[in-house]
Amino acid sequence: MRNRIEEAKQAVRNIPDFPIEGIQFKDLTTLMKSPQHLTTVSDALYEMYKEKGITKVVGIESRGFIFGAILAARLGAGFVPIRKPGKLPAEVISKTYDKEYGTDTIEIHRDAITNDDVVLIHDDLLATGGTILAALELVQSMKPRDVMINFVCGLSDLHGRDMLPKEIEVTTVFDF
Amino acid sequence: MRNRIEEAKQAVRNIPDFPIEGIQFKDLTTLMKSPQHLTTVSDALYEMYKEKGITKVVGIESRGFIFGAILAARLGAGFVPIRKPGKLPAEVISKTYDKEYGTDTIEIHRDAITNDDVVLIHDDLLATGGTILAALELVQSMKPRDVMINFVCGLSDLHGRDMLPKEIEVTTVFDF
Repeated sequence: MRNRIEEAKQAVRNIPDFPIEGIQFKDLTTLMKSPQHLTTVSDALYEMYKEKGITKVVGIESRGFIFGAILAARLGAGFVPIRKPGKLPAEVISKTYDKEYGTDTIEIHRDAITNDDVVLIHDDLLATGGTILAALELVQSMKPRDVMINFVCGLSDLHGRDMLPKEIEVTTVFDF
Repeated sequence: MRNRIEEAKQAVRNIPDFPIEGIQFKDLTTLMKSPQHLTTVSDALYEMYKEKGITKVVGIESRGFIFGAILAARLGAGFVPIRKPGKLPAEVISKTYDKEYGTDTIEIHRDAITNDDVVLIHDDLLATGGTILAALELVQSMKPRDVMINFVCGLSDLHGRDMLPKEIEVTTVFDF
């Protein structure tokens, strides 16, 4: 499995200066378009979480929907989207958080998670950690039994892990 | 399977007057958060496409990513996103199309599909068909071997099927 994951990681495309100068953007579309690497990441996620009792996988719009939904289906869990404002049609809880320039807001349906749920929050990439911290606070406000966090890919130089509470289990499939 | 699909359909939430007055919005989040119904739709899609030789599933941002990615993983195909402008970091092909008020643009990576691919384009919901027609034209411009189209849910009153060429195979899991 380690070799397969290393090959999947090698399939990630580096895009210099996107979306702004100085950023080395990690483009996972080149991994996902490959049946082999899509299967590898899907298998790796399933192995990591198959015995954790996950009942809901929360995916963050929109790239977190991809492996989040795949993992939910494989685990036999439900899938819950966290979305940009105005996209979810029923009653929502919102969270606004600071970004480098300005603020951003994310939302979740108020009836999406119950006290009985064991939740895995998933996004494709851990960078500075602002969005995932806001997502964690949204999910925790609904008082599930447990919450874990996962990314396909972590950017270790940006220290996003340090933004998140120490007691929360955070995993990645691979890191740069 | 028919009974299971009917139960999944019953789990779809109707939201009156969203996003604008007069629209009966079909909210599939209530289906997806249920492990049972997520499994039903995933199984139904897999049964529909397991013998079609699909090599790439193209999902339309962002709700089309959910079952599109699940189906790609189950089929052992690759997954390719079609996204809003400026989101895909490498070289793209774009298509602008008319909507009721104004226009919209979608993009796909130029290297996402090859001549050898058999492509299934997936979105969650077929309404008036404008977006899926633009997506079809984007994919066809890359000259794959074959293209098919699928939705979880069709709104038959809106006659979106009539927007699409007769020779393209179009399926839904259920209709309203």
